[in-house]
Amino acid sequence: MPIDPNAAIEITAFQWVPPGAQGLVKDLRVRWALEEAGLHYRVRLIGGDRPPGYAQEQAFNQVPCFRDETVQIFESGAILQYIGEKTEALLPRDSQGRYRAIQWICAAISSVEPFVQFRALLNVVFADQEWAEPAKPTFEHFARLRLQQLSDRLGDKPWLEGDGFTIGDLMMVTVLRIADRSGQLADFPKLAAYVKRGEARPAFAQALNDQLAVFAANEPQVEEGAAA
Amino acid sequence: MPIDPNAAIEITAFQWVPPGAQGLVKDLRVRWALEEAGLHYRVRLIGGDRPPGYAQEQAFNQVPCFRDETVQIFESGAILQYIGEKTEALLPRDSQGRYRAIQWICAAISSVEPFVQFRALLNVVFADQEWAEPAKPTFEHFARLRLQQLSDRLGDKPWLEGDGFTIGDLMMVTVLRIADRSGQLADFPKLAAYVKRGEARPAFAQALNDQLAVFAANEPQVEEGAAA
Repeated sequence: MPIDPNAAIEITAFQWVPPGAQGLVKDLRVRWALEEAGLHYRVRLIGGDRPPGYAQEQAFNQVPCFRDETVQIFESGAILQYIGEKTEALLPRDSQGRYRAIQWICAAISSVEPFVQFRALLNVVFADQEWAEPAKPTFEHFARLRLQQLSDRLGDKPWLEGDGFTIGDLMMVTVLRIADRSGQLADFPKLAAYVKRGEARPAFAQALNDQLAVFAANEPQVEEGAAA
Repeated sequence: MPIDPNAAIEITAFQWVPPGAQGLVKDLRVRWALEEAGLHYRVRLIGGDRPPGYAQEQAFNQVPCFRDETVQIFESGAILQYIGEKTEALLPRDSQGRYRAIQWICAAISSVEPFVQFRALLNVVFADQEWAEPAKPTFEHFARLRLQQLSDRLGDKPWLEGDGFTIGDLMMVTVLRIADRSGQLADFPKLAAYVKRGEARPAFAQALNDQLAVFAANEPQVEEGAAA
C-alpha cells in the first residue's frame, strides 16, 4: 500500500535513528502487518525531542503509536492484534489458532526479545562500559538457551504453527532480526532460514523500504566545515 | 474458587521453588485471573526434571501452561486474554477499552518486566558474578526510567485506565511485585500504592495462598544428619 496522508489509520515513527537501529525500529512491525492486511495508513514523524504531551500517547516515549476512528493505543504487540482482527490472513478465527498466534506474540516480546536485545546491547550501547565484556558469557548463555528452545520448537515447519503465517510469526521474525543483525543466529540455521522466509514476503519488503525511506530523507546534515 | 481436580481448566505450576521466587512464579497471574473470573481449575505440578515432552507444551520449559476443552496454550499474557474473554469484569467489550487492556498486558511484559527483572537478578542469580556490581548503575537507570514513566502515566488514578480494574492491571501489578520485592519501588509511592490495591483484592489473596500452599506441602526434606 502506498503511504496515504488521508488514511484513517495513523502510526508514529521516528524521523531518524542511527544506522545500527535502522530497519529494526518497532514501527516496522506495524507497517508490515498493515501491508499484509492491505490497509492504507499515514505516518506522523517524531523527532528526538518528543512533541509536548507525547507521553500521554506513548507512556514510554517510544514509537509506534496507532490510531484510527476507533482506538488509540501503543505497544506493537497490542497493535498487531488489532490489525490481525481485521483479516483472517493474519489471525485465525478458531480459538486454538487465534490464541496460538497471540501466544507467539507474547513469547516473542517477553520470552525471546529481552534476552537477545540485552545481548545485542552489550556490543553497542553498553560497549564502552567496563562490565560489558565480562557480562557477555552470562547474557550469551541465556540468549542461546531461548534461541535453541525456539529452534527446537520450530523444527522444519515453515511457520511456528505449521503452514499458516500469522501475526505471531510476524512478531517473532522481527524479534529474531535483532538477534540476526548482532550475529546471534550463526549457530541456528533453522531460525536464520525462518527469518529469511519472513523477509521474502512482499509485505515485509514494502514495510522495510518505507521505514528506510524516512531515514534517508531525514539524514542529519553534516555542518559546513565539520569534515575539515 | 477451591482447586477442583475435576475442573475442565488445567494449569501447570512448579512443585517447589526457592523462597526468593515464591509468590512471584507466573502461574500466580493465571490463578489470580481465574479467581477474578470465578472459574474452577485444577493444577498439574511440574518438578525440576520436566516431564518427557513438556517442551511441546511450553517451548521454554516454564510454567504455566493452560488447557481446557478448547485451547492448549502457554505465555501468561495470552492466557490472561483468553480468560479475560470469558468475563467483561476483566476485559471491556468496547474496542478502545479492550485494546487498552491488551496494551497494558504488552507494556507490562515487554516494556517494564525485562528492566525490573534484570535489575532484580543482579541481586540474586547474578550476585556472585564480578560484573554484577559495576553493572548495577546502568540497569538501575533503565529500570527507574520505566518505573517513573509508568508512575507518571498512572498518576492518581486507581487503575491504569481509571476506575475499572482490567487484566492489564492484573499483569502490571504482578510485574511490579518483582520490582517491589527487590526494593525498586521505594521512590515510587504511587506504584507501591497501586501494587497494594491489587494485592488487597480477595481474588489475589486466594491465588497467592494457593500458590504458596503448594510450596509449603512440597518443601524439600533436609536429609538425616545434614544439620550435623
